[in-house]
Amino acid sequence: MASRTAESLVAGTSYLLLPTTSVAVDFADVFVDSACGKDVLKDCSVKYEPAPRTMIAINSAVYFFIYAKSLPKAEILNACDATAIHGLLLGNTRFLKTGLALARRSSLRRRLTKFYRCGTVGESNPNFHRKQSWDYTHAARRHKWISVRTGVTVPVKMFWCQSMLPMVQCDIMSKLIPGPSFFIGKGDDTDLISFGSGQPDLPPPPEAFNALKKYKGFKYGLIQGEENLRTRLAEEYPGAKPEHFVITNGASEAIDLVMRSISKQGGKVLLPRPYYYSYPHVVSYSGMVPEYYDLAEGGKIDYAQFADIAPGCRAVLINSPSNPTGTVQEIKTLKKIEALCDRLGLYIISDEVYKDLIYDRKNYLLHGKHVVTVNSFSKTFAMCGFRVGYVYSQDAELVSSIVEMKNHTSMNTSVAAQFMALAAMRAPASYVEKHVKIWKERRDMLYAGMLELGLELWKPEGAFYVLPKLKNSGRVVSDLYYKYRMITYDGAWFGAPDHVRFSYALDVSKIKEGLRRLKKFLDTEYKKY
Amino acid sequence: MASRTAESLVAGTSYLLLPTTSVAVDFADVFVDSACGKDVLKDCSVKYEPAPRTMIAINSAVYFFIYAKSLPKAEILNACDATAIHGLLLGNTRFLKTGLALARRSSLRRRLTKFYRCGTVGESNPNFHRKQSWDYTHAARRHKWISVRTGVTVPVKMFWCQSMLPMVQCDIMSKLIPGPSFFIGKGDDTDLISFGSGQPDLPPPPEAFNALKKYKGFKYGLIQGEENLRTRLAEEYPGAKPEHFVITNGASEAIDLVMRSISKQGGKVLLPRPYYYSYPHVVSYSGMVPEYYDLAEGGKIDYAQFADIAPGCRAVLINSPSNPTGTVQEIKTLKKIEALCDRLGLYIISDEVYKDLIYDRKNYLLHGKHVVTVNSFSKTFAMCGFRVGYVYSQDAELVSSIVEMKNHTSMNTSVAAQFMALAAMRAPASYVEKHVKIWKERRDMLYAGMLELGLELWKPEGAFYVLPKLKNSGRVVSDLYYKYRMITYDGAWFGAPDHVRFSYALDVSKIKEGLRRLKKFLDTEYKKY
Repeated sequence: MASRTAESLVAGTSYLLLPTTSVAVDFADVFVDSACGKDVLKDCSVKYEPAPRTMIAINSAVYFFIYAKSLPKAEILNACDATAIHGLLLGNTRFLKTGLALARRSSLRRRLTKFYRCGTVGESNPNFHRKQSWDYTHAARRHKWISVRTGVTVPVKMFWCQSMLPMVQCDIMSKLIPGPSFFIGKGDDTDLISFGSGQPDLPPPPEAFNALKKYKGFKYGLIQGEENLRTRLAEEYPGAKPEHFVITNGASEAIDLVMRSISKQGGKVLLPRPYYYSYPHVVSYSGMVPEYYDLAEGGKIDYAQFADIAPGCRAVLINSPSNPTGTVQEIKTLKKIEALCDRLGLYIISDEVYKDLIYDRKNYLLHGKHVVTVNSFSKTFAMCGFRVGYVYSQDAELVSSIVEMKNHTSMNTSVAAQFMALAAMRAPASYVEKHVKIWKERRDMLYAGMLELGLELWKPEGAFYVLPKLKNSGRVVSDLYYKYRMITYDGAWFGAPDHVRFSYALDVSKIKEGLRRLKKFLDTEYKKY
Repeated sequence: MASRTAESLVAGTSYLLLPTTSVAVDFADVFVDSACGKDVLKDCSVKYEPAPRTMIAINSAVYFFIYAKSLPKAEILNACDATAIHGLLLGNTRFLKTGLALARRSSLRRRLTKFYRCGTVGESNPNFHRKQSWDYTHAARRHKWISVRTGVTVPVKMFWCQSMLPMVQCDIMSKLIPGPSFFIGKGDDTDLISFGSGQPDLPPPPEAFNALKKYKGFKYGLIQGEENLRTRLAEEYPGAKPEHFVITNGASEAIDLVMRSISKQGGKVLLPRPYYYSYPHVVSYSGMVPEYYDLAEGGKIDYAQFADIAPGCRAVLINSPSNPTGTVQEIKTLKKIEALCDRLGLYIISDEVYKDLIYDRKNYLLHGKHVVTVNSFSKTFAMCGFRVGYVYSQDAELVSSIVEMKNHTSMNTSVAAQFMALAAMRAPASYVEKHVKIWKERRDMLYAGMLELGLELWKPEGAFYVLPKLKNSGRVVSDLYYKYRMITYDGAWFGAPDHVRFSYALDVSKIKEGLRRLKKFLDTEYKKY
């Protein structure tokens, strides 16, 4: 495969190299009609806005490549084109707009329109999903699942008709950053400035490490979590009892267990957008379908929009303070949501992992019969690596269901880590207060610095993120990393294309240097976008 | 609700208290015809032998209670009756036999036969599942999901027609032990002899605890697991590389992640029977369906039976040495399975958590393109509570898929626990050798003791379990606990009714005392069963 074409591929995507256009078209037919194709497309039709990355990837990849081969002059297409094509083919104007705004290749669009008889580009194409009548009996008879080599992210299986042609696997190289996992383990370089990581750089309270020194337990603990830790947690929540808590492997497992426990095939879960990037995944993994409410001006919930979409959902997710926006929701809005969900009988999953990192007021704890609070020791006590989170809910049935599931899927949370968590709670209040002060200073510096650079962004009121608008965010993240030695996260990973997330979990001297490099980038490269 | 009736209920089961027989029958009709009822029954029809406990429970509960109310004299029914009724209604002779062997209430059976027009009791009733024509439009129009209060195990949601009658929730009390979780945290009593727990009583190597003393990390680790631990593990497996491993929250999460990663809706996973009790659950959670191969004489795999069922499955699970039987599979059988699965393109999930606890030979590591080895530090290094396990596979695509999923569902495994695991591997070989010697002595004592008591059982060759035949095992476990202060596990929890699992992870003096109590039980209570 020519390196020129290879450069156009998206890292982390599955590709098939096909010899001719007609074969590619045949393949598309087989794929669309196959059991797997139907599955993928069906999933897309319910999830495509925004689809989990893998779903976008697989569709983009297939059609993207088919398309690339169908053009005699085979232009180098970038990921934006792939996104546009994906949008075109699925009749999804959102993707189309995002992709085409960048690609601006009208000839390409015209050709695609003709090629796929999709109607006018940019118009919704409801017929595209309709079952085609193409007879694929001969293919189905000899079908076989073949795995396709993938890059760094999730691999996807494809239906493949072996009889048609041999499959050639191609290597993938690209400068586009596929996702947050690309950056994990990077950032300790003195030269590299990491605005990527969503974890405190300051250490946990000394109490936590001291506890570890004398730890001697080794047997299974209670699946629900150690009694003493749950008793201590109950003191933090008015009216709570130890049996209302389940200690989990971080907030991630907490949310996953909640989703799996409340799951009803095809049930809708209402997520904020921008969202923490795992939300849509865990919703989909549980067999449910993500729906979205868009955060409005200032990163606040537009209650009218929310109330419009909530009925018909099985659960809603609130994340205040928010990752990736850093915004905190108004108490009056949260109260209205409580009342609405109570009336509708919906679960409220309240991800409050940043509850102790709010600059202007105390956290407001959501109340209600079916409120499920998710929290963690990771951010408050800088214990990300130890993985201790929890679910708090007064819904006894849900708690018991989560415990039963955890019994089979991971058993107790690591006992030594729970012991540390309990010890961390013995740290004086000044530990958290000191940290909040530091976060606030950094927030002020970064926020002011970005305004000065002319960036448009919401003022963060908690957590440690800002999410400025930056067009063509994928390219920005790539350029900042490769050319300016800065790690930032593409807003597209959080459902916010054309935004870039900066975490300020790093020293002020580094923030300053980062702002300096960002200014240079904006004055040079970015001007040419 | 009268306490007399309450006593007859099964702990951990959902009940509905219905006011009259006719209402109960109406409810049954609604339930069978409802979306939920269909779901439950559909699941039962594919899973019922043996159904996950919750499925048995929900069906038993509904019909059990209906039945209890339909008898004017309302006898006290025990769990065995419920099981029998469940078997009768689903036309499942296996349940019928188990239940009725104990209940021996022919008048009860005659009444049931008449009441449900099910044909002769004990005969298979293939018509029971057939969609009934009862029109439930009026119910469906007003239906609402109502959760039913549950006892100690998993709660189950039921379809309920609100318009028909108010639901009354009842308290549950029973002497029947609902499942292994009932015993967790019990057993440190001096008086109580616990043959229950599946974990070493001897501590981890001192190296592990020493490591903990100087641990200072706190940030997120690699999702895949710490590089140094994976590098060290790779030395243990011929031809392995660090990238072939994923470190997980124990073997439980490893198996759960594998199932979720390979999941195809409705795909079949072939499990051994008797099985470790979580297997059917994680298969079902992943949207797949458990199938079973029965271990034959001596606890060995009957290859002919295995080869007969394997085609059409997506994956097969091998567990050698086995929990709960302690038996080890023959190398020649394992090699045939390797070849068969390779030919059929099936995943082999090999749960080898007891691989270092084999008495007569070294472990045989299964090989193959799609072999997924699951292992753990819990048993070899007595680190159950810390939760460090791993997946080892040369299937790069599967590994990458598992890492991607773990990124969203739990992130890295606790970094301190991984640090301990690495330190434990520095312990001299004598650590494991000494343990195996101790396990072997205990095995010999318990096995010989049981033969002497006239019990029928397979000779365990690894792990630390025996599984003697004992009729009416649920009652045995209950009686041994309440009357003889001994913890044992009901074989039914492992798909082996009429067997009881004894773990010998306890001191020889306690094993001796346990055998003495068991003898007394067999000579008295058990004779009257």
